[in-house]
Amino acid sequence: MSTAKIIEPQTGAAFKMNKGDILTVIDPMGQQVSDMVLFNSDDQREKISAGKTMDFEECILLTEGNFLWSNRSHKMMEIIEDTNGRNDILLAPCSAETFRIMYKNPEEHPSCLTNLHQNLESYGIDMDAIPTAFNIFMNVQFSALGKLKVLPPTSKAGDLVRFKAHMDLIVGLTACSAEDSNAGTFKPIHFLVTKEQATTTR
Amino acid sequence: MSTAKIIEPQTGAAFKMNKGDILTVIDPMGQQVSDMVLFNSDDQREKISAGKTMDFEECILLTEGNFLWSNRSHKMMEIIEDTNGRNDILLAPCSAETFRIMYKNPEEHPSCLTNLHQNLESYGIDMDAIPTAFNIFMNVQFSALGKLKVLPPTSKAGDLVRFKAHMDLIVGLTACSAEDSNAGTFKPIHFLVTKEQATTTR
Repeated sequence: MSTAKIIEPQTGAAFKMNKGDILTVIDPMGQQVSDMVLFNSDDQREKISAGKTMDFEECILLTEGNFLWSNRSHKMMEIIEDTNGRNDILLAPCSAETFRIMYKNPEEHPSCLTNLHQNLESYGIDMDAIPTAFNIFMNVQFSALGKLKVLPPTSKAGDLVRFKAHMDLIVGLTACSAEDSNAGTFKPIHFLVTKEQATTTR
Repeated sequence: MSTAKIIEPQTGAAFKMNKGDILTVIDPMGQQVSDMVLFNSDDQREKISAGKTMDFEECILLTEGNFLWSNRSHKMMEIIEDTNGRNDILLAPCSAETFRIMYKNPEEHPSCLTNLHQNLESYGIDMDAIPTAFNIFMNVQFSALGKLKVLPPTSKAGDLVRFKAHMDLIVGLTACSAEDSNAGTFKPIHFLVTKEQATTTR
């Protein structure tokens, strides 16, 4: 059994996984968001598309049983387990400008976009190529009129989301850096990549 | 006074406009969607981002007074008039796979993605670079549980949406090709690019 890898608060990670592998993303302390972006490792111009995902899944809220789709209309991942049940695919990764424009904070601030870029750079993926993420554990509420509000995550310590890869992937993953998304505190995210068989014996 | 340009049913167009110019998109017959994508004409890696737009506008439903934002967190366009009031920014342009997977139609079918690509190709923009569009007149309903349903547009003949460019742009625009989005029939879209002064005298 492998041990979980740790993404320290307000940082990120990037890694490869093969078709069939299982990724488990764990919120070890509760109320911590993790932004995830996906690229086809054979051709990085193919990547997760929030628009195509909502199109094919016919839903804004994605959980166990839903798929994450690419801009080329291929299934990239399947959500095979979700102990919390609230994730977001509407909002883009927080960036330096998020804090400058929305938080009125002109100071240097870590962000998911920067953390994704710093980790994905070694795979030749530049900042502009980073798409809207699947925001694991993120609690974005929408009214009937479409007004959006970011609330603290409902995830508790130990909640996890498990994904099965449907193609060979490069994955970017963060422990999100935005105050409002994480109940005002910054916590780590744990993750684990295992072979398919490993999870059938749990 | 310039005359409107015509996008024939199930086709598209691409054109440049300068900062300050006004784009008017007209539904001449009613109940016809037009997908619009935007690129910074000085650097096409900067383009419309649905995720960043919903982030900064804090809303899914965008109309008069809202801005369309780029992946670099810059304002690309401002919606300065909207006589219909229902547009969509959730769903990706319909593609060959939309009809194969969702409509169970394996036959060749025109699509917004193909039409955008064919028109944007001369500006050096490839298929993979085409992002989720701002879908003018598109009527996507969402339930409290996030379930999505595409209904016929509420637009009537002559309804229009007017946009002011906040940077120099390359614009891709379609008369949408998807049955469900357009009440089962395919109609043209008209558009007009004018200088800022032209609209202050209307």
